[in-house]
Parts: sequence; C-alpha cells; structure tokens
Amino acid sequence: MQRWLLVLLGALALLLSSQARAENAPKNIILVIGDGMGYPYLSAYRYFKDGRGETQQADMQPTLFDQYLVGAASTYPADSTLVTDSAAGATTLASGIKTYNGAIGVDAEREPVTSMMEIAKNNGYLTAAVATTRITHATPAAFFTHVESRRQEKEIARQYAEPRPDGQLKFDLLIGSGRRHFRFENDAGERVDYLADLTRHGARVVESTEGLQSQYRLPVVALLHEDSFPYVIDDQPRLKTLTQEALRLIEADGRPYVLMIEASMIDWCGHARDIACAMHEVADLEAALEYLVAHVEGRDDTALVVTADHSTGGFTMGADGQYQFRAALLHEIQRSLYVMSRALTNMPRIDWDAYISHAIPYPLSTAQQAELNRVASLTATDKTDQIHELLVNIVRFHTGSGFTTTGHTGEDVPVIAAGPWREAFRGQQDHSDIAKQLIEWIK
Amino acid sequence: MQRWLLVLLGALALLLSSQARAENAPKNIILVIGDGMGYPYLSAYRYFKDGRGETQQADMQPTLFDQYLVGAASTYPADSTLVTDSAAGATTLASGIKTYNGAIGVDAEREPVTSMMEIAKNNGYLTAAVATTRITHATPAAFFTHVESRRQEKEIARQYAEPRPDGQLKFDLLIGSGRRHFRFENDAGERVDYLADLTRHGARVVESTEGLQSQYRLPVVALLHEDSFPYVIDDQPRLKTLTQEALRLIEADGRPYVLMIEASMIDWCGHARDIACAMHEVADLEAALEYLVAHVEGRDDTALVVTADHSTGGFTMGADGQYQFRAALLHEIQRSLYVMSRALTNMPRIDWDAYISHAIPYPLSTAQQAELNRVASLTATDKTDQIHELLVNIVRFHTGSGFTTTGHTGEDVPVIAAGPWREAFRGQQDHSDIAKQLIEWIK
Repeated sequence: MQRWLLVLLGALALLLSSQARAENAPKNIILVIGDGMGYPYLSAYRYFKDGRGETQQADMQPTLFDQYLVGAASTYPADSTLVTDSAAGATTLASGIKTYNGAIGVDAEREPVTSMMEIAKNNGYLTAAVATTRITHATPAAFFTHVESRRQEKEIARQYAEPRPDGQLKFDLLIGSGRRHFRFENDAGERVDYLADLTRHGARVVESTEGLQSQYRLPVVALLHEDSFPYVIDDQPRLKTLTQEALRLIEADGRPYVLMIEASMIDWCGHARDIACAMHEVADLEAALEYLVAHVEGRDDTALVVTADHSTGGFTMGADGQYQFRAALLHEIQRSLYVMSRALTNMPRIDWDAYISHAIPYPLSTAQQAELNRVASLTATDKTDQIHELLVNIVRFHTGSGFTTTGHTGEDVPVIAAGPWREAFRGQQDHSDIAKQLIEWIK
Repeated sequence: MQRWLLVLLGALALLLSSQARAENAPKNIILVIGDGMGYPYLSAYRYFKDGRGETQQADMQPTLFDQYLVGAASTYPADSTLVTDSAAGATTLASGIKTYNGAIGVDAEREPVTSMMEIAKNNGYLTAAVATTRITHATPAAFFTHVESRRQEKEIARQYAEPRPDGQLKFDLLIGSGRRHFRFENDAGERVDYLADLTRHGARVVESTEGLQSQYRLPVVALLHEDSFPYVIDDQPRLKTLTQEALRLIEADGRPYVLMIEASMIDWCGHARDIACAMHEVADLEAALEYLVAHVEGRDDTALVVTADHSTGGFTMGADGQYQFRAALLHEIQRSLYVMSRALTNMPRIDWDAYISHAIPYPLSTAQQAELNRVASLTATDKTDQIHELLVNIVRFHTGSGFTTTGHTGEDVPVIAAGPWREAFRGQQDHSDIAKQLIEWIK
C-alpha cells in the first residue's frame, strides 16, 4: 500500500477514534491514588519484587506499574511552596482546582469546590471510596467533604454523616478505618455517634472485613479499625480484598460509578523513611491493581487511572556516595521501623539484640552497637525518635536507601492507566488535568 | 458512524501504520543524553524556568521536556549494584547490552561489543557525537571505543585516532573538549599527538567554536577546551550552537546519519550537589532541543529520542521536613559552587563576605556565619571540600534542595521523543530497549 494512503487512513482513524472517545465517555471511572508513590518507589519495587541481588541483562520482569505507565503529572499546589501535601493534592485530584496545603475540598479562598463525587452523585452515579487509612484522612476526605484544615477529622466525619439536601447520603460506599472520629465524647462530655446517624440515614455500618463481606446492598460504611490500619509489613495484605468487595457491591447495584481507591500508607512509610515498609505497601497496591486491570480489560466501559499525589521522604536508590541499592536485602526486614522503635522504647536493653537481629538481621558495625547502647540508656521524651533515627541509619547503611526529608518532595509523579481510555492520560500533564478529564466524562 | 466500524478502522490503521513504521526506518537518528538528568531535575527546571515564587492554578508553562515526554526507562547495570555509572549506562545506550560500572564499549566479560556507531558506519551512515565535556569521557567514548575502564582516557583518544581496517576514521564528526588526552608527554617522556594522527587520516582538527564554524567538509574533530568546558552558570550557553554546527556539517554531506548529543554537565552539577548549576545546564539542553525538535518536525525522515543515563545526587525538591522548594531563588545564584569553593580557598577571609553575597545573595544565619569563620581558618587539605559542603548547606537551607549522595541514584529516568517515530518509545522500557530499537533501524 502507498505510504500516503496509510498516513491518510491513520489520520482519519485517529480523528474518528478521538471523536468516538469524546462521544463515548466511560460508564465507570476508577481513580487509584498511591499516596506518596513517587517514581523512585516504583523503580525500587521492581527490584524488590525481583528479589535477586544479581542482574545480567534486561531480565527484570516489568511490574504492573511498568506495563501500564503512560506518563507523568506535576503536583504543585496553589501556594508558593511547589511541594504539595496530601490535602491539597487530593482536593486537586477530586475537583481539578489547585489550593493551599491543608485544604480539604476548599479552594485558595477557602470556598468549597465541587468534587467529582458530588457531580457524579448529582448525575446518577454511585460514588465509592476505599482507603487503607482513616476515611477522615486527607485523601478520601477531599472527595466528599469541605473543611479549611485536614486536622478537622471530626468535622469531616460529621459531613460524611450529613445527608444531601435530597435526603440521600453523599456516598454509596466507604471502606477504610477510623471509627474514633465518628464515635467519641466531645468537649462538653456528650456522646457523639455519627455512625448511628449514618445508620439512621440508611447506611449499613460494619466494623470488620467479615462484616463487609456479608453485605449485599448499598449504601455501606466499613470502618475496619478504631484508628489506622497496621502496616502490611506488620500485618497482612488487605487492599485487594477490599477492592474486590467494593466492586462486588457496586457491580451488584448496576448503576454507573466513580470509585476512588487510595493506597494510603506508602506515604506513611515514606515519612518514617522506612523503605521496606513502603515496598510491602506498594506490593499491596500492585495486588489490588492486578485485579482492577483484569476487571477493566475484561470489559469496554470502565476507565482506570492510577497516580500519586506526591513523593515522600525524598527516597533515592543509592546514598552516601555509594553506587549500590540492595533491594533483595529489604526482604529480610520483618517489621516496620515504627513498630520496632516503639517496641524497643519499652524493652530492656538486654532484649534488644535478639529483637533487632530478628527484625533487621543485618550485621551491625561497632559504631552502630555503640549508638544502640547510647539510645537504650536515654530517658528523654524523644527516646523513640532517636531509636527510630538509628534504625533508619542502619537500613540506609546496609541497603543504600537515601532520604532527604521526613516530608514530601515536589517532583512529578507517575501516571498509569488501563482500559480503552488510557490514551487520555499520555505524556506529561498537571494532576489537575487528570481530574478535569474525569469530571468531563461524568458531567 | 457505528462504534464497531470505528474500532475496526482504528485497528486496521494501527496495524498498517505499525507495519509502515517497521518498513520505513528513519533515515537519520538523533539520540540525546542528558547525563544525570533524572525526573526531579526536569520538574525543578519547569519551576526554575517559570521563575515566579507564586502559583495559583495549573498555569506553569510546560517545558519542551514536558511537551515531548513519552515514558520512562530503567537503567540497572549488569552487576549487582542496581545503580549505574555513566560508562555502563552509555555502553548500554550505545550497544543495547548491559555491562559493569566503569566499562566503555565492553560487556560483562570485558569483551568488546559492537556499538550503533560501528553498525552505522558499516552501513554507510555518517556518525557524529557532540558532548559538553571531554570527548574521551564515558558517554561519548562508549559509542566509538572499547576499554575496560573509563579512566583510560588516553587509550580512548588513541582509539578515536586509529582508523578502521578500511582506512576510514571511526567517526565523521566529534565536537567536545579534552585536547589534553590527545596531545601529551607520555611516561617515557615522548611527545604523543593523536590530533596529528587524526589530521593525517583526513580529519580537520579545530580548537575553537570559530574554527568549527569555518568548517564545511567532514570529517571534523572540534576540541574546544584543553580539559573540560566551564559550567554554563560560570560561562555562557553553548550546546545549541554546537548542535547547529553539527547539523550544518552533517546535512551538507547528505548521507544518512546517527548523531549522539550529550548534555554532559548536568551530572557534574549533580555530583557537586549544585542545583543552580544543574538548572543552567538543563536550560542549555532545552535550547538545543528546541532547535532539534523544530528540525525533526520540519521533515519526515529523522527520529529524535532524549533520555538520561541515570539521576545524580539524589536531588529532591524539598528537604529537611519542609514542604517548600524555592525555585525562583536559584536565579540569584551567580556561580557554580565548584568555582566558588575554589575561589574562596585562595581568598582572604576579609574578602569572603563581598564575594559570597554577590554569588549567593541569601541572608546567612548566625550559625552559617560561624561556620564560614571556621572553614576560613582551616589549613587542612580538605579546606575546599569543607567550603563546598558549607555552600551546599546554605543553598539547601534557603531553597529546599535535598541531596542524598555525591554519586548516582537508580530510579527510572525520563524518555522524551519527537518526530514520526516517537511512538516507539512510549511507556516504561529498559534503556537497552532504546538502543535495540535504534540499532534495529540502522541494521
């Protein structure tokens, strides 16, 4: 065939298919947010998953993140910082507008902004969120509620429990944790129970995974822990099960839906500068994604897009001038540094060596042993912090994991997409553009 | 039109266009390597280029890197480190095979591997390289020569000067610096002059940009500095001019070509943990790329792909727990920290304040002033290093620039492409796949 004919045909098909896409918005939307899941975490996870110390050729298996990578997103907030927090990031991903750090569903002038969940609800969609942290935490909160500060978790719980003017709840399904912000004694000594309110307004409220699994009709609120989830490294995988349950309940209903899923604790591991912890959280997300990708690719009506709100900790593979990252060694770590530093704080020095050699089985240098003795003898209020710092340094030294901060960093984050609408997220974009595209589809 | 017809048409066009692409390799190939240019450098550059302290909405102009971003590449070498150096990285980008850190054009068994430049030369292509460092440095060297260690720069120079068995030179155009490895006195006290050899074998050897601009016929060797180039921040932009001259000479010849262009010193700034320095080097590359993209998009026969060999320094936007990166402040820095620390070493303390307040016009804290006094009084051999460390800390403190290492880091790097063949580099890939694709086209 002549080349000009091919080019003409290709151009025609592109034109028609982009028109078709514009005309045919997906029926369902699934937005997955890996909190704190910057590029370095996904690269490190590939090597962690491979698990070998040695490589010869290009024989690393691509992860699911690799297979579906389509682009990158900038994440700067509407203030002068250039480094977003999860509240501003989630508000942008939920509404398409930028705001100040700390803002939940409000703009830079502190005015409420309409989220994609609110638009979806107005237009007859089911709305659902799954998070591996408190459902009142920044990311899920910004999709359903409006407060000036992310710290107002009890007000966020109240807004979740408050029905819309039409009497409907604001959501059809919430899965996460954090009952303590829904059921507590207020400053006046009065018992507050937003869970009772939710039940009164028609939701089934469950407090365990088994309780969730026995549900068959929306709306459902599943709050699986009083406060936060434990880390996967200290507990067990969970996001795939929660995702399956969410889709089971949603699909049984049959209406179109917008589902937001947050792998919440990659970020928490990043703040703790705990790379083994982060790797287990990323693995937990990959397992859920494997299910989601198969689900989306098995049909022709659902858009799936995955991104991060920011990276955390300034994690780098390689540190201190060494050209070495020992991903395989991370498998030997048995506990989060968070759990370890708390356990050690309350443990006599005589028991430390056995505990540490089980949880981080790396040979310790003389200097590290001396540092152990020093922090063990502390009675200062920051003893736990100093133990934590020491553990961070031991892992960094042995694995080559660098960190620049206990906070976030501002570089672009990965964008991953599957299904017929994945082309919409190709290349570099701002995170607000992702939200704008999703909102365009449900408007 | 019916949806099924659109899908059918689209599939047909895709099939035909991918066949067309396979059948129609590009006539010319341009591979651009930003040495050390990891994602955080490109994100930071966007904000540096914008230059404002404040943002409100998604109003940051995308850079050229943003506009043409297509994917990411993994960079792990063939040893157990997972963090590559520029020698192994360049050998992979030149030949498609992975090797050990330090290797120039040899594989993990230290056997020479055939580079794309050698294949190209065998197949009648012009071969050319432009670098903003010594042409005997790792990246350009791995495209033309074969040595076990990157430190063998004089052997690399000898190999450049040694003709192929057919009497032709191995290249048609080399632009860079580093005459000192071509013309020197050897250990036996003998004068060695590979530049004279190059002239004897038909190359025109020039030592200035003006000399390069007066050339009209290949082969040409332009070595513009005795050793390395100065940093752009200390000197002036140069890569666009060198790129224009390279294309002028190549296009005048008319044969198909493979051109490798390296923006060499982003990496050097990264090693020095000098983010202002790096921003000026990235700007220098963007100016050259602007020319290249216009050139490639104005025709239908040239593939342009841009990537990095690795990231350097573990640079992050944000550090020390602060959610803040002050990109605009970087414009106030007038000199590389490398130049500053050397100037200060040989400068009486009484002159430091004027010099520093000109070169880094940030208010210094009392602690920083005290540290200045301490390092100024040093007579140790590492005085320059300690001054450098202090300057790094001043810039980090004021701008929120974090660094984890004086070496490289192992996360995936950006892949950018323009022209009709850009689809070939979509998504996540290994850097060896980029080389394999380019080699496939010239085989």
